[in-house]
Amino acid sequence: MKKLLAAAALLICSLTSIAQQALWDKPATFSPEIHPDGSVTFRMFAPEAQSVEVGGDFLAQLSADGNAKLTKNDQGVWELTTGPLAPELYSYRFIVDGLTIPDPASVYLIRDTSTIFSYFIVPGDRADLYSINDVPHGTVSKVWYDSTDYGSRRMTVYTPAGYEQSPERRYPVLYLLHGMGGDENAWSELGRATQILDNMIALGKVEPMIVVMPNGNVAMPAAPGESHLGMLPPTTRLPHTMDGSYEESFPEIVKFIDTNYRTLDDKPHRAIAGLSMGGFHSLHISKQYPDMFDYVGLYSAVVNPRGETGSEVYKDFEGKLARQFAAKPALYWIAIGDKDFLYDENVRYRALLDAAGYPYEYHESADGHIWRNWRIYLADFLPRLFR
Amino acid sequence: MKKLLAAAALLICSLTSIAQQALWDKPATFSPEIHPDGSVTFRMFAPEAQSVEVGGDFLAQLSADGNAKLTKNDQGVWELTTGPLAPELYSYRFIVDGLTIPDPASVYLIRDTSTIFSYFIVPGDRADLYSINDVPHGTVSKVWYDSTDYGSRRMTVYTPAGYEQSPERRYPVLYLLHGMGGDENAWSELGRATQILDNMIALGKVEPMIVVMPNGNVAMPAAPGESHLGMLPPTTRLPHTMDGSYEESFPEIVKFIDTNYRTLDDKPHRAIAGLSMGGFHSLHISKQYPDMFDYVGLYSAVVNPRGETGSEVYKDFEGKLARQFAAKPALYWIAIGDKDFLYDENVRYRALLDAAGYPYEYHESADGHIWRNWRIYLADFLPRLFR
Repeated sequence: MKKLLAAAALLICSLTSIAQQALWDKPATFSPEIHPDGSVTFRMFAPEAQSVEVGGDFLAQLSADGNAKLTKNDQGVWELTTGPLAPELYSYRFIVDGLTIPDPASVYLIRDTSTIFSYFIVPGDRADLYSINDVPHGTVSKVWYDSTDYGSRRMTVYTPAGYEQSPERRYPVLYLLHGMGGDENAWSELGRATQILDNMIALGKVEPMIVVMPNGNVAMPAAPGESHLGMLPPTTRLPHTMDGSYEESFPEIVKFIDTNYRTLDDKPHRAIAGLSMGGFHSLHISKQYPDMFDYVGLYSAVVNPRGETGSEVYKDFEGKLARQFAAKPALYWIAIGDKDFLYDENVRYRALLDAAGYPYEYHESADGHIWRNWRIYLADFLPRLFR
Repeated sequence: MKKLLAAAALLICSLTSIAQQALWDKPATFSPEIHPDGSVTFRMFAPEAQSVEVGGDFLAQLSADGNAKLTKNDQGVWELTTGPLAPELYSYRFIVDGLTIPDPASVYLIRDTSTIFSYFIVPGDRADLYSINDVPHGTVSKVWYDSTDYGSRRMTVYTPAGYEQSPERRYPVLYLLHGMGGDENAWSELGRATQILDNMIALGKVEPMIVVMPNGNVAMPAAPGESHLGMLPPTTRLPHTMDGSYEESFPEIVKFIDTNYRTLDDKPHRAIAGLSMGGFHSLHISKQYPDMFDYVGLYSAVVNPRGETGSEVYKDFEGKLARQFAAKPALYWIAIGDKDFLYDENVRYRALLDAAGYPYEYHESADGHIWRNWRIYLADFLPRLFR
């Protein structure tokens, strides 16, 4: 009997290993390979290249100076293994004889404005919030709404796991806004927002909520390549992104969501947050409509409009702020990195809030105006909502 | 007054042109550039490279032999302008000193199994069905369902424009299945299925319908990088793709859709179609459940199982086919290219259908086992459904 069990176990193991092998099917050039200690091996097959380097946000940890050089073996494969990296989502690119490209051996690419990066996750700690884990998953939809002034426009909508199965239940809503050069895909792709939500809701740390990620570029109906404007080169230089147009039209987004989703459609169940330009939008939208949002999150936010726009939205800044805070928002949350180029602008804004005695929470992180910080801010912000 | 109008027109033009410029923001290396006559300029900034070529499916039209060479100018930009190309969605890659990469100047990338291609569209004719036009757009959702035997699994669901605004209306459903190496993203990305549907519905040529694009790899809950299996290298060598598991479990997908969407939940309002392995799945699922689908589409389909699987699904092939055709399906549609490696297998299958007197429609196209054909087949098949 023992022998039979052993044979059965062996059979199961070998079947599993065949299945694993087939699932993995490790290609000749497997890159990047994440080792159990968090070190990473980069590989590139380029027998004719004279020089291959890797650049990326992980290098700072290794006290590397500039890019790191790969070494060629006798099969023409260039290789580099790093020291152990802290858990995080990292992005990188190769430089081959002066040409900067994503990793040709990896299909895991991400676009930040006009640049395509390869990326990988070293698991553990907060990086596990960015991974797709075996937990219930929400639905992520690309939805078009009709704007009175700006035509048909696209947004990303996250509905939490169980939304479809609970037809009587209504949910609170977070409006989550992107920065300059971003679009309705930015938070779900670069920001790992849907993974963070799935994971934190499954852990019981965050209330199940609907998250709406609209496109804040009124001159573009959707992300590059996703609208009738065609396959334009992405750019940060878009008209009407910070001239009041978006802020003025925002209530039609809220109305669309309240009409088409099972929302709790009142101020205590609405939050708005955004990064950089999206923080600017969140600041000005929330004070323009003081009865709309009880929770406000400003992540590395631009505070003041750039130049004279003529928009009514930016007029009477302090009067509107006074009305917003008189209505006592449940949370006004400001976060920024100590090396952010908007740091001083935020210091001045907090001085204004302090002088007026308006309560807010403040979180200061290391480093600057980067997605790593915005993922951290989102994961810090979410548990404070709707509780 | 005329002067005033002229001045206003001038102002509008110049504003528009500023807006256009900002929207375009042509980068130093703009590639690919599609000219009005359908010719295309490829560009690559690589001053240190010794040789830059482009390879792609457009080359056959230019009677080119192998790849086409780009020429370097004195700014270090390599360039090539093709002759006029027929309207189509094309994919291509550069070869730089022997290294094959997508176009570094373009963000428009598409994954086919483990290969990343750049792509572009030459507009006109049927290629306009693949473009995103200024028409009402359906919603595209990534949705998870619970499989009894295979856990939580992901699918892509298209609901047509107007679905949300017509809460009383119920819709027919097309189940659209991918091939080997594909996943729940294949039809919406490589197949341009959501564009084809948006455009053909807007033209009044296709009934508004729900389209369900599940993942036919039972060993993977979702596309590579989209499940808790992590960021595996994509592969075609997956276990349980053609062993009956998927076909047996298919009714739970239909049940999930009928439960969670406003479907017309009977045979006259259900279609199933797929390419290659998805054609195989469509063939065997539709004969296994003869009362489920009134419309069947086999695009470049595999007909027979490979080797002995032991699955009940593949037993009594002719008996099941007899029951399916006795129930008189509204449409049994077979399409294949004359250079497809599955051509002979389809000839034999049609001989079997002919011998038994089972009616079907047959469409033979040029060329082989390629996405260009599957997009054409989908656009041919859709207008025949639910009318």
